[in-house]
Amino acid sequence: MNYKMMGQFIAKMLAIETAFMLPALLISLFCGEASAVSAFVGSIAAIAAVVGLLFLTCRGSGRAFQEKEGLVSVAIGWVILSLLGCLPFYFSGAIPRYVDAFFEIVSGFTTTGASILPEVESLPRGILYWRSFSHWLGGMGVLVFLLAIAPQGGNDGFTMHLLRAESPGPSVGKLVPRMKKTAGILYLIYVFLTVLNIVFLLAGGMPLFDSVCTALGTAGTGGFGIKNDSIAGYSPYLQNVTTVFMLLFGINFGCYYLLLLKEFTAVFRDEELRLYLGLVLASIAAISWNIRGLYDTLEETIRHAAFQVATIVTTTGYATTDFDLWPSFSKGILLLLMVVGACAGSTGGGIKCIRVILLLKSLRRNIRQVIHPRKVEVVRNNGQVIDEKILANTNAYLAAYVVIIIISFLVISLDNFSTATNFTAVLACFNNIGPGLEAVGPTCNYGAYSDLSKLVLSFDMLAGRLEIFPILALFTRGTWRVR
Amino acid sequence: MNYKMMGQFIAKMLAIETAFMLPALLISLFCGEASAVSAFVGSIAAIAAVVGLLFLTCRGSGRAFQEKEGLVSVAIGWVILSLLGCLPFYFSGAIPRYVDAFFEIVSGFTTTGASILPEVESLPRGILYWRSFSHWLGGMGVLVFLLAIAPQGGNDGFTMHLLRAESPGPSVGKLVPRMKKTAGILYLIYVFLTVLNIVFLLAGGMPLFDSVCTALGTAGTGGFGIKNDSIAGYSPYLQNVTTVFMLLFGINFGCYYLLLLKEFTAVFRDEELRLYLGLVLASIAAISWNIRGLYDTLEETIRHAAFQVATIVTTTGYATTDFDLWPSFSKGILLLLMVVGACAGSTGGGIKCIRVILLLKSLRRNIRQVIHPRKVEVVRNNGQVIDEKILANTNAYLAAYVVIIIISFLVISLDNFSTATNFTAVLACFNNIGPGLEAVGPTCNYGAYSDLSKLVLSFDMLAGRLEIFPILALFTRGTWRVR
Repeated sequence: MNYKMMGQFIAKMLAIETAFMLPALLISLFCGEASAVSAFVGSIAAIAAVVGLLFLTCRGSGRAFQEKEGLVSVAIGWVILSLLGCLPFYFSGAIPRYVDAFFEIVSGFTTTGASILPEVESLPRGILYWRSFSHWLGGMGVLVFLLAIAPQGGNDGFTMHLLRAESPGPSVGKLVPRMKKTAGILYLIYVFLTVLNIVFLLAGGMPLFDSVCTALGTAGTGGFGIKNDSIAGYSPYLQNVTTVFMLLFGINFGCYYLLLLKEFTAVFRDEELRLYLGLVLASIAAISWNIRGLYDTLEETIRHAAFQVATIVTTTGYATTDFDLWPSFSKGILLLLMVVGACAGSTGGGIKCIRVILLLKSLRRNIRQVIHPRKVEVVRNNGQVIDEKILANTNAYLAAYVVIIIISFLVISLDNFSTATNFTAVLACFNNIGPGLEAVGPTCNYGAYSDLSKLVLSFDMLAGRLEIFPILALFTRGTWRVR
Repeated sequence: MNYKMMGQFIAKMLAIETAFMLPALLISLFCGEASAVSAFVGSIAAIAAVVGLLFLTCRGSGRAFQEKEGLVSVAIGWVILSLLGCLPFYFSGAIPRYVDAFFEIVSGFTTTGASILPEVESLPRGILYWRSFSHWLGGMGVLVFLLAIAPQGGNDGFTMHLLRAESPGPSVGKLVPRMKKTAGILYLIYVFLTVLNIVFLLAGGMPLFDSVCTALGTAGTGGFGIKNDSIAGYSPYLQNVTTVFMLLFGINFGCYYLLLLKEFTAVFRDEELRLYLGLVLASIAAISWNIRGLYDTLEETIRHAAFQVATIVTTTGYATTDFDLWPSFSKGILLLLMVVGACAGSTGGGIKCIRVILLLKSLRRNIRQVIHPRKVEVVRNNGQVIDEKILANTNAYLAAYVVIIIISFLVISLDNFSTATNFTAVLACFNNIGPGLEAVGPTCNYGAYSDLSKLVLSFDMLAGRLEIFPILALFTRGTWRVR
């Protein structure tokens, strides 16, 4: 293990965290929120001390980075980021218990949006901003950000390991040959779309603070709202804008890059994008039919159906209505969308559409092979042959997914909530969605779970956001063995 | 497609079915149940007519059998067996609607034990016997039986295809070089254990008819009871005997053969058996702890915990208590056991312990490979290297399993039962267990579902019993393509 280099990288991640706490501090100062101001000052001081300590102890470069060190750095980095990132919540008294504050910030950074707070409107604005901003930072990844702004280190293999560990999807596409530039392009698109979202919200008469926080939560596909009723209280126009932008942030950012290059055919033919959009449209149609009669007008029916489909498939977690009251078929569709999730290379969570495609295609191949044992077939996506390693990896991903869900479900069952509550709580946290059904439905929160369950669900959120392997690597003997 | 040979085999399966209806007819005659007598006579006549027709139209041998024809024969054979096997229920008026009768017999042959009947004690004894016997016939497989009694055809490859399609587990072990002899040995062990079970039940004072029906349901790990309260009304001794025999029938029959050969070390070291027994003991301990205080004595607590663990892990489905009233943690453990199921090569359903082992081992390997990309590793079971094809097949099995569960869940959600009801109904049918939670709990039945849902659940039961691929082969274009 190259602990020095790992320490340096974690220090840089934390430095970015403190830098991004400054706007929150300014907002608190501007609004005269004394408790929040002192909380941010204290947090920044504490994190700065850790950063300084890490830089002092981890000087020197050491030898080259290995794949496993990339995985471990990312996993540990995210945990430390969360352990320290929740300090403003804790210091300000907004969340009096540290475990709860940790759960809340993990939920933020992993863009889950599951909250332990029964109400949020009484919180200081600086705290609300930091809560929403954690989604934005976590959505595209703090390490991707680091790569985008850091001076070119020359070690492209190392950055590749990091990016692969932090970015969603079975294979990380380089947009351009140099990873640093790729990271930069991704963040430019991300910032542009976020600003566009803010502009559209402002145009609908939403106040500036609300617009910024809502757009940050949408961009990261997070879901922390600044109102107790999430998005339900805003106008139909603002709800529709949010629906559209949630869906946009669930699309692979590589597609936007292709659009910039005017490669429209490639985007149009992208199989993942087609599955994603097809699933969205089919789900909206099926749910609108299923919930007909629940709302006054067709417009309202479709608006709520579209919003809830978008919020679940992109794993955002905003709500405009209590879908726990919908009929079972609609809830079933939403459960399915929870598992599928958004596109790889987006800010959304879940298994990802591309993995679903690969799983279905390799399933079809295997059925054919049972029938014709001597036939050799490859699996293709967008016309390209998929490496068998990626297929094996995708299958392992599914297996790990199922195993983690089962174990988590068992542990949180000890709290004796209903089966549907426990099952959807795990699904909603692991897939970084936020609300589940019944006692963790859109109008409820996770506060009633025990500390053990909150830690298990925090683990699930991290494992889901980092796509399992970096977190599992922490618990594998081979990782820590000295050669 | 070699339709002639397929037709001959289906005709032979049906001939066995009529032969096995004779004891049921005799019981009805003996008990003077007029409706049942005429129902069995009518059913036997109808099936005999179909058998005659098939033998007449499918004379001649045709060319050699292919793998896919084995799969398709088994799938179609089981469907026709069920379509005709439910006639006694329908003709006797015991189940007035044909769809319900079909669901009931599919549940019987697949050893599921899910019933649409709200009460069974008023049924004629001949019908009750046929209902319980369907479990016994389905448990070890009607084709295996056919192979055991049929004159040696000389085509060992063909019988291998059939056995592979009908027998549970990722790879069919030949006990002895000739398949016919293997089938015979399996059925001898099966008959011996069944008789032993009857003897133990009789020794506890259970009436002969009850003993036979209960043992048939136990042996097939089916679960149809002849009392409305399943096994709850019998003495603790009888409950414990049933617990032990359910667990015995969940063990790979190959282990019994090894015991006959006095190869005790091989049995003791068998990884699947260890996982199975470990899981059983751990679950009993955890549930006993979790439900402490619900029953009067420690003996009663452990007895109910052990019975319910055995009934679920072996996918039998008998009950001595309403586990839907247990705390969530215990229900969670039972849900997990539902999915895992019994050992391969037993009469039980579920994913099977050996597949769980293979999935976990290939998962561990894949995690290691993410960490050390250049390391090449094989997966072993009982010290032997597992063929990569079997691993790929196991992963495909899991993927198909998840896909079928999701689609079935969505369709039956249209009936608007609770999420937990729908989810566990699919799990309980697909894994051939019987009872689920909430509206399909141990004290409830499947009668309230719509016809569409009953057909979907029947499909799930068949897909689960035949381990997915034979049923999926029916719906694959390549199967029906003429070369």
